[in-house]
Amino acid sequence: MKVQLAKKPLAEALGHVERIVPNRSGNPGLNLVRVTATAGGLLLRGTNMDVDIEASLDVDVAAQGDVALPAQVLGQVIRALPGDTVDMHLDDNELVVASDHFDTRLQTVDPDNAPTLGFPTEFPTQMDAEALSQAFSHVRYAAATAEYQAVFRGVKLEVSAENQGARAVATDGFRLAYHDLPGASGLPGDVIVPAKGVDEILKVLNGPEVHIAVGDAQLSVQAGGIKLNVKLMDGTFPDYRRVIPTAFPVTVSVSAGDLKEAVSRVSVLADRTANNRVDLFVKDGQLRISAEGSFGRGQETLDVGQSGTDAEMALAFNAKYLLDALASFSDVVDVRFSGVTSPTVLGQPNQDHHLAMVVPLRTN
Amino acid sequence: MKVQLAKKPLAEALGHVERIVPNRSGNPGLNLVRVTATAGGLLLRGTNMDVDIEASLDVDVAAQGDVALPAQVLGQVIRALPGDTVDMHLDDNELVVASDHFDTRLQTVDPDNAPTLGFPTEFPTQMDAEALSQAFSHVRYAAATAEYQAVFRGVKLEVSAENQGARAVATDGFRLAYHDLPGASGLPGDVIVPAKGVDEILKVLNGPEVHIAVGDAQLSVQAGGIKLNVKLMDGTFPDYRRVIPTAFPVTVSVSAGDLKEAVSRVSVLADRTANNRVDLFVKDGQLRISAEGSFGRGQETLDVGQSGTDAEMALAFNAKYLLDALASFSDVVDVRFSGVTSPTVLGQPNQDHHLAMVVPLRTN
Repeated sequence: MKVQLAKKPLAEALGHVERIVPNRSGNPGLNLVRVTATAGGLLLRGTNMDVDIEASLDVDVAAQGDVALPAQVLGQVIRALPGDTVDMHLDDNELVVASDHFDTRLQTVDPDNAPTLGFPTEFPTQMDAEALSQAFSHVRYAAATAEYQAVFRGVKLEVSAENQGARAVATDGFRLAYHDLPGASGLPGDVIVPAKGVDEILKVLNGPEVHIAVGDAQLSVQAGGIKLNVKLMDGTFPDYRRVIPTAFPVTVSVSAGDLKEAVSRVSVLADRTANNRVDLFVKDGQLRISAEGSFGRGQETLDVGQSGTDAEMALAFNAKYLLDALASFSDVVDVRFSGVTSPTVLGQPNQDHHLAMVVPLRTN
Repeated sequence: MKVQLAKKPLAEALGHVERIVPNRSGNPGLNLVRVTATAGGLLLRGTNMDVDIEASLDVDVAAQGDVALPAQVLGQVIRALPGDTVDMHLDDNELVVASDHFDTRLQTVDPDNAPTLGFPTEFPTQMDAEALSQAFSHVRYAAATAEYQAVFRGVKLEVSAENQGARAVATDGFRLAYHDLPGASGLPGDVIVPAKGVDEILKVLNGPEVHIAVGDAQLSVQAGGIKLNVKLMDGTFPDYRRVIPTAFPVTVSVSAGDLKEAVSRVSVLADRTANNRVDLFVKDGQLRISAEGSFGRGQETLDVGQSGTDAEMALAFNAKYLLDALASFSDVVDVRFSGVTSPTVLGQPNQDHHLAMVVPLRTN
């Protein structure tokens, strides 16, 4: 192997690989990055068994070769290099990395010690990378975290019945969020992507387009020079549509930022042992947010646009759930109250591509 | 109590108090901030038994009063306030904090539940705050961290024999640093300040001047609106002067930044189980830094100014110790080698107010 390349893209590519490859692992091959110099360029590959990654760098290869070495070690060495370019070549089983005055010889191992990874060669579905990034970001928080919650820990990417595209949706039973991608057609079927896989996909979504392939129990994406395979989740995603209310006696329109700040302020006083309860009370175009705990109580009142003006509504939420839901909105948000014990729905005025739903706390 | 004041200085003052006051504590009074409104302004006081703090705010007090409440709670509430000004008043045993649309009532306790703190009224010694800050910053790293190392865990502030001022000095037996304050006269005697107390003093040193009082087993400082009492350490500080070498067969002059970067790069390959060993080799105006560990080896060679040009020197250091010592230098640093097993001294060319010393590793 013999190759000369710019430090920055190599360091970035290794950063992606290092994020996935475990630093220490019971499986001795799992901490390795496989470095392959081919006629087509330089490939860096690694896996944590749930997510596989391949970063390809379009560089001139003077001599081909194939080695493996600990990903974190190569990453640290490359990031620390003094110059802007790096020379790498293989000398016996040592990878010589040189840049400017600095010279390193890194122990390598036979590439057969690294897990064998297979990436699709065809990615039939294309989506706008920024749109998919926004959709995943807007729903990911609503996925469950506890191990036993199975498919609730995933984000469903489904062929949307509501539009010609796709929808990302997540729910943990207490809250739900979906975000539609009207233009994103071509998905061959519904998949449930583990939330941790979604996090990895989000970190590589920076090209203008993302290319997607759905394989056997695996979702593969290609964005920029990065390919990822993410293991899909088995199981049936709940029929979430039937729990979304459609009738709302009271709706308020309010600046998402103002509401976020007010809930955040008041929740300082909320009782952490009682679900961080904050109370909302709507009446006469005013929304009062209040909380009470062992340190005292706090309240704040916001002027809001109110439909159903002759009605009032008093209900309570876990402040964290309300803040998570509000975080995906900017400008004005419509908060639609279906009742004291039935879910509250947040959405943008006159738009239905992005919805967040929170179940109120039982207050007695 | 009734007072109106600006949010920002109150939040800053509470930030200082919160850093010191423990959030949860076995001693129930220790998590409190005592808030006292007097004719002279507003006082905020707290302690962790090692460091006492008093922050005073020069504000108009409409009604005097004295309460105590959990410091972290008040701090969180104040930081979250929406407006630029805060109104606080006492209603029964609740502290009402209001700002803009937001209203809080915080439970308070009798101020007698908070520890009684006494601060000096006179601070006879003045020093330049920035100079003391630099002196403490340049030596603090050399203090020991292990509990059993007693006075080695402190920074000595001594009446300097070398100049008319003071000297800050710290050592853990493997490295040593001192920094002189030639103008800082007036210190009544030597004191040993716990390194953690030094950290707290460093965080409040932003006035042009710092005022110092040495009391019974306690050092007090006043800077800006903040007073601190720091418990001093008992014991005898080692006679460090006799371990500083005075004869140096080889000295190299090199950019502190270049040397830091080179050591940092090479040390990526150093063996963590062998004191992070890096080797230095000086010959013919070149300094070679190298390291070898289980992942491979690395080396870098720097052109340096060398005195004692016909001599050569090969020795090894703990990379972390060398980097800590280099961190307090900018521009050119003189690295003075006294021998393979005796301490190496770092200093600025033609200046002796700031010295760092590192003991080499035994290499066989």
